[in-house]
Amino acid sequence: MRFDVFSLFPEVFQPYLEISILKRAIANGLIEVHTHNIRDWASDKHHTTDDTPYGGGGGMVMKPEPVFAAVEGVLGTPPDCPLIMLSPQGELFNQSIARELAGYDHLALLCGRYEGFDERIREHLASRVISIGDYVLTGGELPALIVMDAVARLRPGVLGDREATDDDSFSTDGLLEYPQWTKPAEFRGWSVPEVMQQGNLGEQLKWKRQQSLLRTLKWRPDLLERVDLSEKDHKFLRQHIEENNDIKEDDSLM
Amino acid sequence: MRFDVFSLFPEVFQPYLEISILKRAIANGLIEVHTHNIRDWASDKHHTTDDTPYGGGGGMVMKPEPVFAAVEGVLGTPPDCPLIMLSPQGELFNQSIARELAGYDHLALLCGRYEGFDERIREHLASRVISIGDYVLTGGELPALIVMDAVARLRPGVLGDREATDDDSFSTDGLLEYPQWTKPAEFRGWSVPEVMQQGNLGEQLKWKRQQSLLRTLKWRPDLLERVDLSEKDHKFLRQHIEENNDIKEDDSLM
Repeated sequence: MRFDVFSLFPEVFQPYLEISILKRAIANGLIEVHTHNIRDWASDKHHTTDDTPYGGGGGMVMKPEPVFAAVEGVLGTPPDCPLIMLSPQGELFNQSIARELAGYDHLALLCGRYEGFDERIREHLASRVISIGDYVLTGGELPALIVMDAVARLRPGVLGDREATDDDSFSTDGLLEYPQWTKPAEFRGWSVPEVMQQGNLGEQLKWKRQQSLLRTLKWRPDLLERVDLSEKDHKFLRQHIEENNDIKEDDSLM
Repeated sequence: MRFDVFSLFPEVFQPYLEISILKRAIANGLIEVHTHNIRDWASDKHHTTDDTPYGGGGGMVMKPEPVFAAVEGVLGTPPDCPLIMLSPQGELFNQSIARELAGYDHLALLCGRYEGFDERIREHLASRVISIGDYVLTGGELPALIVMDAVARLRPGVLGDREATDDDSFSTDGLLEYPQWTKPAEFRGWSVPEVMQQGNLGEQLKWKRQQSLLRTLKWRPDLLERVDLSEKDHKFLRQHIEENNDIKEDDSLM
């Protein structure tokens, strides 16, 4: 899979691509990342890429000419792959969009700086606008890395056997993942729960499911509304809520 | 403001701190970032930081000993500042949490790799668990950078006058930002809207508000439920929805 990334700061991408799973995926020829400096396509003497907005309001806006020139210079006219613009004014990125994007063999990512992009870039150049969350960042570089990381690990062969993805939060059923423990069995007097140490597989699977449900209820109740729960799941949650009705803070879930 | 970051890949942070607004904030003494390699605190010969999970399930889990040793070695016992664990099993990061965190003068960030952390780290060491979004990443390094970036730019003096934050999405009223245009007024036959070129301030403010409402309605209707809308806003949206009731795809908003 090939990524083309357009940014004013292409130098921030390389170090993240030189570690861990992405490094190995690139070494194995599974992932390719090409970064391009939008400023190289600015045609005036000062290589200007931004200007003041119409209608005032403070901040600077990225000009259309260098962005169109950069994207079309690399990808052709029209671009020969989807161009994803990273912007807080977009649809919210999630694991299901990551899976969808992992179906492409070639994607381009467009990172803004300043107040944002001239609207004509969104209207006439971008195929899709994605936001990674409801917070304000200095630019689109970290969001582009987030998208590349989430998408690349879904490509066949990128993750090794030891890095299974099936149980990860959001991967399968949309619940938060259950808690995990590793050795030592006791650390500073805090023990790994009996069921995880001694239980049989059936007990452990049941317990993991219940813990996923409880954590999602506690930290991300919004997710429960979007998940297909079994009758057993519903019964467990109802029972838990009834039992804890009079308890203000449920410490057992912390 | 000081950040202490604990990670198995401390080398990925520096390049992002050497560009743009964060670089200037660090040069001006407004922000300090100290990165620490958790592996340096692993006491065995092989500097092991992970092990297999109890109860099976694939993947590796970060061991408690090196993480406790690293955090307590740098920040004392108990840590002298809040320790934020980055994990998909946490509360969802947003601009209001960023504002809250910007109120601290010292924060620590804990980045995981592998399947996640031994649960005792969350229970007995972390002050807060934050997720930056509903997607699976290779590690907590990009999320930690996201949090630092979002928080740092809210500290007094970090943004210059040209980088106003008030109009950014989520900064003030929880709506998506209105579209922006800069020069040239016409580019490839696509013109900046008349009202932004010629309108008076009152018309422009009204138009910007309406565009914010329309974009939020189109791309992030979930946000509208959480926002305090005026009677005028409600009326405008109702009218828009009625007018477009029979139109399947509202191209005027693209």
